Amino acid sequence: MKLKILVVAGDGIGPEVTNEAVAVLQDVAALGGHEFTFTERRIGGVAIVQDGTPLPADTLNEALASDAVLLGAVGGNEFNSLPPDKRPEAGLLQLRAALGGFANLRPAFAFKELAVNSPLRPEIVDGADIMFVRELLGGLYFGQPRAWDRDKGESWNTMRYTRDEVARVARIAFKLAQGRRKKLTSVDKANVLEVSQLWRATVNEVAAEFPDVTLEHQYVDAMAMHLMNQPRNYDVVLTENLFGDILSDESAVITGSLGMLPSATIGGKVDLYEPVHGSAPDIAGKGLANPLGAILTGAMILRLTAGLEAEAMAVRTAVRTVLENGGRTADLMRGTNPQGYNLLSTTAMGAQVRDTL
Amino acid sequence: MKLKILVVAGDGIGPEVTNEAVAVLQDVAALGGHEFTFTERRIGGVAIVQDGTPLPADTLNEALASDAVLLGAVGGNEFNSLPPDKRPEAGLLQLRAALGGFANLRPAFAFKELAVNSPLRPEIVDGADIMFVRELLGGLYFGQPRAWDRDKGESWNTMRYTRDEVARVARIAFKLAQGRRKKLTSVDKANVLEVSQLWRATVNEVAAEFPDVTLEHQYVDAMAMHLMNQPRNYDVVLTENLFGDILSDESAVITGSLGMLPSATIGGKVDLYEPVHGSAPDIAGKGLANPLGAILTGAMILRLTAGLEAEAMAVRTAVRTVLENGGRTADLMRGTNPQGYNLLSTTAMGAQVRDTL
Ligand SMILES: CC(C)[C@H](C(=O)O)[C@@H](O)C(=O)O
Ligand SMILES: CC(C)[C@H](C(=O)O)[C@@H](O)C(=O)O
Repeated sequence: MKLKILVVAGDGIGPEVTNEAVAVLQDVAALGGHEFTFTERRIGGVAIVQDGTPLPADTLNEALASDAVLLGAVGGNEFNSLPPDKRPEAGLLQLRAALGGFANLRPAFAFKELAVNSPLRPEIVDGADIMFVRELLGGLYFGQPRAWDRDKGESWNTMRYTRDEVARVARIAFKLAQGRRKKLTSVDKANVLEVSQLWRATVNEVAAEFPDVTLEHQYVDAMAMHLMNQPRNYDVVLTENLFGDILSDESAVITGSLGMLPSATIGGKVDLYEPVHGSAPDIAGKGLANPLGAILTGAMILRLTAGLEAEAMAVRTAVRTVLENGGRTADLMRGTNPQGYNLLSTTAMGAQVRDTL
Repeated sequence: MKLKILVVAGDGIGPEVTNEAVAVLQDVAALGGHEFTFTERRIGGVAIVQDGTPLPADTLNEALASDAVLLGAVGGNEFNSLPPDKRPEAGLLQLRAALGGFANLRPAFAFKELAVNSPLRPEIVDGADIMFVRELLGGLYFGQPRAWDRDKGESWNTMRYTRDEVARVARIAFKLAQGRRKKLTSVDKANVLEVSQLWRATVNEVAAEFPDVTLEHQYVDAMAMHLMNQPRNYDVVLTENLFGDILSDESAVITGSLGMLPSATIGGKVDLYEPVHGSAPDIAGKGLANPLGAILTGAMILRLTAGLEAEAMAVRTAVRTVLENGGRTADLMRGTNPQGYNLLSTTAMGAQVRDTL
């Protein structure tokens, strides 16, 4: 099959990790006789510096002409004093909005081999396998009005949702649950927020279309605790934009490292793929970054955009095998006895995955 | 000394746990020759049922005429279909607003005796001691405009802060840090939200008044992860209202049970004290509730409103001693070998603390 992928590597460790993901995808294409073409464009801090804007028109046009976009990471400390709409992150948010994907899928699951890396007890995380579905185009991230009125010394953002916005992402979450363990947990703060009351009412309405899925509602504060106490209790977890941002990062501790987590954003014109981790400027350029989040993000491209399920599984199996054989990037060595492990640089880890494929 | 305390026990397990806290405070008064008077009024679901409103005027007047208010918990499933402003929680939010306390202090610390109850590894939690300072009168909880427009199928809440609102709570957090390990972590989402940019700028300004305190900023998503990976890294954590709601509940896993966590709200006309746990309708009236959160909340009344530091420490020591001797409520037995422990009802746990005092 043919696939046109735009790579927007972005800032910090973005280029290092997307390089490895692209190399893996190229090997998959060669092995399976597929034709994947890769184009590169700028986004985020590098685009601010070189193009004067975090999302150049050329990048956006190229993205809209692709089948999938693979993003590395955006952000850097040198931009911290800029207002939200001028920062590297604005480029990412504009890209998300333009591509139109509203359902951000963030799997969090325990790799047995990495149990020692989790601050959670092994018996708590063992077997945990959660799929977060984070609404990605609404809520505080995009809600109007928003401003910082410096004269008045006052600032505001708006958490806003329409019924349709909630219903469409809920449908994706219910469908995913049907293909999994048939349980959906919807997260809100309906005891305080009107916007959560609309959220809950809409999810309840959509539930009628999926009678085989068990639906439960949890308040976001309670959920932040339950996810740590009983991660195995959860199958698909549906959240609004900011709650999903917080809870999915928190759940990285189930996997053992934020560096392991992939994500895919679907439902729009072009699918957008990003590892969950950030640009990590402190370790950028040192070969310390974990490329497995990006490589597993590549596996999500194979599964969701390309429909190559076997190839996606092969990548995941290769990652697991490398971990089984003791291959570890620096972030995965924390708190472990270095004996029996193999400390790998970013490129060495990528190479091991490709050799194992 | 003299102290006038209003008890608003509220719903679910509220009455059970506040009963024990009051009994402990009465013993403290008797032992120290203090004169504590207790009055009771309704709030939340019981007030909706009996008075037609979650915060009767009589309750509010009595609260304003007291030195401290001790709240149990509010909320119940039978009110779930009511709009936010008619629910039990509205009574609590109205009371918070009327009393004017804007700084909600939520300690989270590891009791050695309860390490086995935490889903986190003992070596991660051991020695953790965090003081959350949650802004309690701003943000999405109170921000206008807010509505659910059913005709348009649209709903919104406003996350709003002024410089003054941020500065006053920041000052309390910095002062607390001065009396502790001199580190303050301020939490925001300044890479996306204007309201967080005002938050961060204001905290930076206030920091100049406290040169002996080390200030760091963390994004809320990263913080949700760091708190689990390295809870010992944190001393005082300053957050806006909703972020504090989420992160302090999450941090209950450090302590081992939400049932252990006290809170105090200061800075207003009358100090307000509440255990962090909710009304837990599923276990209400069964003697299963853990009263230690309420009892430790009583200790915070002694320290913060009464200035009786020695008495506050005595209560905390009594709680620790009971735990050392194996006394456990049901929530603290989870995942533990029952041998060597003593399963106690709510009242039996309260009695043991009083006997130990
Ligand atoms: C970089 C930032 C804008 C982004 C977000 O908050 O969505 C990131 O934290 C994420 O989770 O993808
Ligand atoms: C009951 C609810 C309104 C309350 C809150 O969100 O503030 C509770 O969760 C808390 O943390 O005290």
